Amino acid sequence: MTQAKPAPSGALQTVHVALGARAYDIVIGRGALAEAGSRIAQLAPGGKAAIVTDARVGALYGQRLADDLSRAGLRPTLVSVPPGEGSKSFPRLIEVCDAILAARIERGDLVVALGGGVIGDLAGFAAAITRRGLRFVQIPTTLLAQVDSSVGGKTGINSAHGKNLVGAFHQPSLVIADTALLDSLSEREFRAGYAEVVKYGLIDDPAFFAWCETNAEAIFGPGPARDHAVAVSCRAKAAVVARDEREDGDRALLNLGHTFAHALERATGYDGSRLVHGEAVAIGMALAFRFSAMQGLCPQEDAARVGVHLASLGLPTRLQDVPGGIGTAETLVEAMAQDKKVKRGELTFILARGIGRSFIARGVAAADVRDFLVGELAGA
Amino acid sequence: MTQAKPAPSGALQTVHVALGARAYDIVIGRGALAEAGSRIAQLAPGGKAAIVTDARVGALYGQRLADDLSRAGLRPTLVSVPPGEGSKSFPRLIEVCDAILAARIERGDLVVALGGGVIGDLAGFAAAITRRGLRFVQIPTTLLAQVDSSVGGKTGINSAHGKNLVGAFHQPSLVIADTALLDSLSEREFRAGYAEVVKYGLIDDPAFFAWCETNAEAIFGPGPARDHAVAVSCRAKAAVVARDEREDGDRALLNLGHTFAHALERATGYDGSRLVHGEAVAIGMALAFRFSAMQGLCPQEDAARVGVHLASLGLPTRLQDVPGGIGTAETLVEAMAQDKKVKRGELTFILARGIGRSFIARGVAAADVRDFLVGELAGA
Repeated sequence: MTQAKPAPSGALQTVHVALGARAYDIVIGRGALAEAGSRIAQLAPGGKAAIVTDARVGALYGQRLADDLSRAGLRPTLVSVPPGEGSKSFPRLIEVCDAILAARIERGDLVVALGGGVIGDLAGFAAAITRRGLRFVQIPTTLLAQVDSSVGGKTGINSAHGKNLVGAFHQPSLVIADTALLDSLSEREFRAGYAEVVKYGLIDDPAFFAWCETNAEAIFGPGPARDHAVAVSCRAKAAVVARDEREDGDRALLNLGHTFAHALERATGYDGSRLVHGEAVAIGMALAFRFSAMQGLCPQEDAARVGVHLASLGLPTRLQDVPGGIGTAETLVEAMAQDKKVKRGELTFILARGIGRSFIARGVAAADVRDFLVGELAGA
Repeated sequence: MTQAKPAPSGALQTVHVALGARAYDIVIGRGALAEAGSRIAQLAPGGKAAIVTDARVGALYGQRLADDLSRAGLRPTLVSVPPGEGSKSFPRLIEVCDAILAARIERGDLVVALGGGVIGDLAGFAAAITRRGLRFVQIPTTLLAQVDSSVGGKTGINSAHGKNLVGAFHQPSLVIADTALLDSLSEREFRAGYAEVVKYGLIDDPAFFAWCETNAEAIFGPGPARDHAVAVSCRAKAAVVARDEREDGDRALLNLGHTFAHALERATGYDGSRLVHGEAVAIGMALAFRFSAMQGLCPQEDAARVGVHLASLGLPTRLQDVPGGIGTAETLVEAMAQDKKVKRGELTFILARGIGRSFIARGVAAADVRDFLVGELAGA
């Protein structure tokens, strides 16, 4: 899956998501946003567009995008919600649906999600259910959103019962991933997104993982290594989604680390000051590899290598790394049992036989997971 | 589309909705509910089922259905909301989603909608978005729901901006239409559903309309004429839905009378004591035919025949028939412009060249509609 060489700096790359009638392109590279107006206008010439963003991203890019869309002949309306995971809620969903209707966005018009994963999930879900489905465009502004959440059509909000438990599969019509927008991310936010980049290597591309180990520093700076990392990630995700759009099979591999991660996020009350999604995924992937090793599925040295690489970039890899603690092994297992990747009460995990050799493990005994977590919490 | 002869009393009929991977059966007839347990259990042997119902229908059939499902090996949970259109709201949707999650309904389990159109729309939408899509079964308990809303996968709730403006296309896995449940409907409720039966004749089946004119009294009583009317209606709707699942074309014909009807319902604040949906549709169909006649599209005598038949059964056919009045022509046209069947500000109506000769009319001038309504209000 890894390209032999990164593309030259400045050139835009296009990854196609092959989903038949729902196929679309992901445009990747520095400066892609400058072309957003004309590309979006091609989807709905002369139409209306509701730009959904958060107050922070909106202040940086909202008016600029609205002006670009106007120049391209569209009629934009800006809709803003507060930043943060808390906006993936029913109250904000209702607000956004109402704002889309108030802007008289009709079938044939567009919703544009301008922001990170929260905005993409919220605006995408609002687009999915307003007038029973409006087309939408993703303009992801974080690394996490560019390499993961903006691609593949999963949209949704959180419930008191857990993360992403209410939502829809709704594919975007276009994704524009301008890597220059990542220049303004905090180190912590970039790092969190990087965990999802590493994930694609761990799933089935050991050469890409090795490339990440060698090039991590370059990926964290602006330049062709970063663009390459985003493009490889999008290509990997697009391939999985094209094979299994609705997660009836293979797509579950993308959940590597996520069953643990969702339980951790729940245990910390989705409080981003303590733990953001990418950090939870970093811990989750390290746990999945150590659990695999403890079960005799995966070499200890591969599990160690995963932990070392993530930790070398400042990512958390152990339960103890979560500020304020994460409760007991029992509460974590209970949280996993409510996760939607549950079939008839059995736990499903993505485990690994080695780096780049992940697989779907069904029927994992909750008792084994609890024992493992007890050991982890004891610092074993 | 009309069968030569009604099926013998007591025999269950099956109408197949040919939607490929999303195909399903509609089982129609007296006593169909007695088979619900075994038929539903075949969809998810040993699984869980959340039965969503309203307080009134639940009191009549809720526990009986739950017991039947238990006997068939399923694990049912009853979820009840207040009866009435008011339950097609975000607050009730949130309650139902929460109850489904609290019951730990997982992928592979089922949601069962037991009730009229409100319950089918609400429970179907909750099923569509909880865990990004759960399978569901429709058990419609009103004539309106049996012949219209339970078939075809349109689900949703109302918004402050209008009716059904938030929702999803989500096909049921099975529909069970027990015509014996209609025995307990009030005359008014049966009549309202009958308007949708007549609609299928008016769209493209003049022989069925003539059959309705002759057999209306029998349809209102228990017996083979009623079952025949339900089966013909379901077959007609199934055929349209199979051709055009997401209303990109032909399916819009099913909206005959509905653009007017939605405006009327909005003007009366969705107050069922003044106007229920089927009554609004009766007025809407009569208006659509009179407007078509005024435009010179349809013979005056066909428009008159539609009005006479509906009125002979006690259905309203004029704006003046709405108790308390419905405001001005301007406010009605404004309400239509916010209806979701609007493309780029132009009004789309279903008009007719005669009984059984309906067609989609795009770009209808709002001024013509307003002038027509001014005349209607003046009692022209």
